[in-house]
Amino acid sequence: MSLELKILGSNSAAFAHNRHHTSQFLRIQNTYFLIDCGEGTQLLLKKNKIKLSRINHILISHLHGDHYYGLIGLISTMHLFGRKATLCIYGPPMLADIITLQLKASNTRLSYDIDFKQWTPDEQELIFENNHMTVTTFPMNHRIPCSGFLFREKPKKRRINKEVVDSMLTPIQVMALKNGEDALDMDGNVLYENKLATLPPRPSRAYAFCSDTQYLPDLAEVVKDVDLLYHEATFTEDMAERAELTYHSTARQAAELANNANVGKLLLGHFSTRFRELAPVLNEALEVFPRSVLANEGESFTID
Amino acid sequence: MSLELKILGSNSAAFAHNRHHTSQFLRIQNTYFLIDCGEGTQLLLKKNKIKLSRINHILISHLHGDHYYGLIGLISTMHLFGRKATLCIYGPPMLADIITLQLKASNTRLSYDIDFKQWTPDEQELIFENNHMTVTTFPMNHRIPCSGFLFREKPKKRRINKEVVDSMLTPIQVMALKNGEDALDMDGNVLYENKLATLPPRPSRAYAFCSDTQYLPDLAEVVKDVDLLYHEATFTEDMAERAELTYHSTARQAAELANNANVGKLLLGHFSTRFRELAPVLNEALEVFPRSVLANEGESFTID
Repeated sequence: MSLELKILGSNSAAFAHNRHHTSQFLRIQNTYFLIDCGEGTQLLLKKNKIKLSRINHILISHLHGDHYYGLIGLISTMHLFGRKATLCIYGPPMLADIITLQLKASNTRLSYDIDFKQWTPDEQELIFENNHMTVTTFPMNHRIPCSGFLFREKPKKRRINKEVVDSMLTPIQVMALKNGEDALDMDGNVLYENKLATLPPRPSRAYAFCSDTQYLPDLAEVVKDVDLLYHEATFTEDMAERAELTYHSTARQAAELANNANVGKLLLGHFSTRFRELAPVLNEALEVFPRSVLANEGESFTID
Repeated sequence: MSLELKILGSNSAAFAHNRHHTSQFLRIQNTYFLIDCGEGTQLLLKKNKIKLSRINHILISHLHGDHYYGLIGLISTMHLFGRKATLCIYGPPMLADIITLQLKASNTRLSYDIDFKQWTPDEQELIFENNHMTVTTFPMNHRIPCSGFLFREKPKKRRINKEVVDSMLTPIQVMALKNGEDALDMDGNVLYENKLATLPPRPSRAYAFCSDTQYLPDLAEVVKDVDLLYHEATFTEDMAERAELTYHSTARQAAELANNANVGKLLLGHFSTRFRELAPVLNEALEVFPRSVLANEGESFTID
């Protein structure tokens, strides 16, 4: 599994119907991200048996409380448990001020460093990169500065076809084949031709997180062909006016975006408390985009 | 019932063993107080079926997260539900700054007013008074400014003894008797002698909340004879050194205070996460003060 997403909470505004505020835990290969952190997220991490030591990167989409009020509590608990590793927090302007003021008020000097990385609202920005993946922000259209996040694996190397390659290769020969070149012998002659001795790379996976936003049709270009798209679906079409007024989307709009972007699967979330049952949300999306599912708390979505 | 206290949470530091952070809901006659507000308090209020509209006064003892991280979420939820009534919040310096900064970051203009009342650390201070009761702060000895709270009913009026008074009284005659005077007839003659026609006032109740603090023997004077004393008991005596180092108390110390102050009942709380079972905490207190009980989540304590 190259990508695994666990939904910790997906309700909007107030807690309701046993649904908690937005938070997701994402693994891409061996890198872990906590995305948003509503009040009580640390309890949901505990419930889902996710070790706090796994979390080195926390991304906050915007400063409405249902997306970050649990952050200071999580930071404090990590401190109580004696964390040493630096914690990277990616968020909008003012987030660092809020956390810093609260730590000052409690006269807390954390047992670890926080590296605040402030993204720039209204821009697409590369905020994280390692050997195998990148994270890029993209602007949402919400009442306050809000960013979506695009997690994308880098192109992978070609794979050696063991049915063809039956001799021991040197590390240089292996590297050459994986990089798309032929493997040469000591005299410089072609030992294995690349196109015969290798298989195409495994696909690079991508996940896009879009919360909260008015419907942005142009987003289809940004999230084109991602394997997994999370998009807020706070309302259904009968409340389309209210969605526009409050800078949120309907399930149908989320599905239209998924359809236009040709994504692998659409996860619907950020449900309004007015929905006790979520079937109307799902059904509305399914009419437009059949690979729609609800981002229900506690569920995992993996891409192999 | 003149006084009813509901324990919402009573664990210290991190969540553990299904125990939540400090919060209590207190009713004295028809006035309601929320005392401290750890993360997730709004969920505990919901679980305990306490209507948010009941809460007009919130007291925060100090700015360690386990005592106030749930406040901003509660404030936000009250706003989402369209609250109109002014909310009075009593807390130490910096609390108003923290809340105000978070509301500014979310560009929220609340549907109601908050009246921040900042108490002065290191002083006893009357912070609330109405016709029937007062609330006074008193200094704790903790790592940061921290106050205890003393809730005290005012002296009540004498009660008319209906077995003696068998005639209809005018409002003036009733008032005279309740105020300890004789009831006179229209000619100014004594109709009912007070000492014969009245019963003593019902007792005035008092509740003292002490969290978090090093053991302060002198506190016995402040909380003398209260009906109910909540005192933190983070540790037991085998960890007395750690208690002193971290400005906390042991169960034995809490019980000694209760004994010296001759209180009606001692509630032990703010349990360390190291106690999965709380029997050692209770047993240690019981050796000194037999009217000790654990402030377990969800339990109510009433004084009739």
